[in-house]
Amino acid sequence: MSHLALGAGGEFDAIRRLTALWGEQAQGIGDDAAVLTVPPGRSLVVSTDVSVEEVHFRRAWLTPEEIGWRATAAALSDLAAMGAEPLGVLWAGVIPDAWRDALDGLALGVGAATRHAGAAVVGGDLSRGVALSLGLTVLGAAARPLTRAGAKPGDVVWVTGRFGGPARALAAWEHGGRPTDDDRARFARPVPRIAQGLAAAAAGATAAIDVSDGLAQDAGHLAAASGVRIELRLDDLPLVPGGEPLAAAAGGEEYELVLTAPVSVDLAAALPPGVPVTRVGRVGMGHGVVTSLGDRVVEVVPGHDHFSRP
Amino acid sequence: MSHLALGAGGEFDAIRRLTALWGEQAQGIGDDAAVLTVPPGRSLVVSTDVSVEEVHFRRAWLTPEEIGWRATAAALSDLAAMGAEPLGVLWAGVIPDAWRDALDGLALGVGAATRHAGAAVVGGDLSRGVALSLGLTVLGAAARPLTRAGAKPGDVVWVTGRFGGPARALAAWEHGGRPTDDDRARFARPVPRIAQGLAAAAAGATAAIDVSDGLAQDAGHLAAASGVRIELRLDDLPLVPGGEPLAAAAGGEEYELVLTAPVSVDLAAALPPGVPVTRVGRVGMGHGVVTSLGDRVVEVVPGHDHFSRP
Repeated sequence: MSHLALGAGGEFDAIRRLTALWGEQAQGIGDDAAVLTVPPGRSLVVSTDVSVEEVHFRRAWLTPEEIGWRATAAALSDLAAMGAEPLGVLWAGVIPDAWRDALDGLALGVGAATRHAGAAVVGGDLSRGVALSLGLTVLGAAARPLTRAGAKPGDVVWVTGRFGGPARALAAWEHGGRPTDDDRARFARPVPRIAQGLAAAAAGATAAIDVSDGLAQDAGHLAAASGVRIELRLDDLPLVPGGEPLAAAAGGEEYELVLTAPVSVDLAAALPPGVPVTRVGRVGMGHGVVTSLGDRVVEVVPGHDHFSRP
Repeated sequence: MSHLALGAGGEFDAIRRLTALWGEQAQGIGDDAAVLTVPPGRSLVVSTDVSVEEVHFRRAWLTPEEIGWRATAAALSDLAAMGAEPLGVLWAGVIPDAWRDALDGLALGVGAATRHAGAAVVGGDLSRGVALSLGLTVLGAAARPLTRAGAKPGDVVWVTGRFGGPARALAAWEHGGRPTDDDRARFARPVPRIAQGLAAAAAGATAAIDVSDGLAQDAGHLAAASGVRIELRLDDLPLVPGGEPLAAAAGGEEYELVLTAPVSVDLAAALPPGVPVTRVGRVGMGHGVVTSLGDRVVEVVPGHDHFSRP
């Protein structure tokens, strides 16, 4: 909105400035709460996600715009995995004094990722604090939300995209090096697979999850929720150039989708072009995830679990 | 939900435990996003609010349950101010190692405030971090949301509750003392005025805001949004025993409602009994807030603005 009617005060000055920065990407900010319309016949789909400095990223790795984009894209990726169309984004920012000058950059990143997904920033909250954190809540609508719980024995397992970039970028930084531009971009500017999730739900996919913790680990959540076994053939996993299948199946932060669908549904044909859609396995009876490479069963060492005790 | 189907990992163990703690108060947790139904003919009303240790509270002041309750109640208060019925709550928690043992207490507080408002915990996210923060997103539904923008010259200004307790509790703590039990409870266990907001909207109130920053400051937001002047007679402001009107009009954290309504609408009769509903002023032409005491115009020194530069 072009005019924001708030009283005086530092927090309100900041909110006014961010709302001006967002321009048409901000809607209805300035009341106690945002008001949205969920289209008739659709369910509301909602998720919240928090990105914390020194836990999810380091300041030296990313620009403020990238930090804002990444946090927002990570949250929107949950809507993609539900086959939901994004409606709005709320940003709760804890902004330390040392990050004050980066506030506009963070906000531009939040706004850009929101715009890219076809949604609007509809609300938020700002607070001081000692460490930067970005809490993103995303709202979407779906006629038939795609859950983790619908995979059936006999279904095919598909993934979007190419794996291995973000983990390699992280490894480079953590060893004091610099990632390649491509790996860095995969970490810094993930693109939530919104169109893919919507098309998969429409085409008859039975379950989906996005890869935030690592392909094998997230496939494990899908297997648990569906009461099935997921069998992944890592030979078929699409990789970034030079990628290594075991590392790619363990690495988090991909924000690609794992989808299951009946054998009769060709998701590669049903999903929009431009992003690879690849068969990587099947759904069996049982539980857990079995990963194979060549003719051997291999163990994928679990990825990222930022809430584990150190 | 009684059974939560997630894979292995420390974060998931914590989520499982909290979901068990919440019992019937948790619904649908365990997928990428929560799915809710907004009743036909109602708008979705949504707000997000972040509470940060050392900014909004200190650990020594409150129990973990109170911290969880307070953060959730503060967020739900925004739904009350919109005349919305709560549907669901999402909690994004940043939990430092030093707070690990308090996690269950925090979650019980979040769950209790959610239950008190008739809603369910529908999702969340947990992360490590160096300072505790609780991001609460609240979802509600309203047939006709009550905004800040509808006050008209000639309307009467009403408030719920009695003012002055939370500011006096804060002052006691900040001077190294202990607040009275009543003042402490007003700070630690605010009750969002959900039923009052719903009844006010149904009775024909024209605008509302909740008092988080201070009566005078929040009335200023309502005045700015409505394009009117708010005239408050502090002689009429209901106070906690021993309360002082100027301090009570400046103090934040009240989570009471300021409501405007046409002269013909008696909000004291329309709102549920048990909480005082008091005429404290009128809406005039112009802008800003004018506060008077006796026959003098007095200045209310602005309350709490935690995002101001120190």
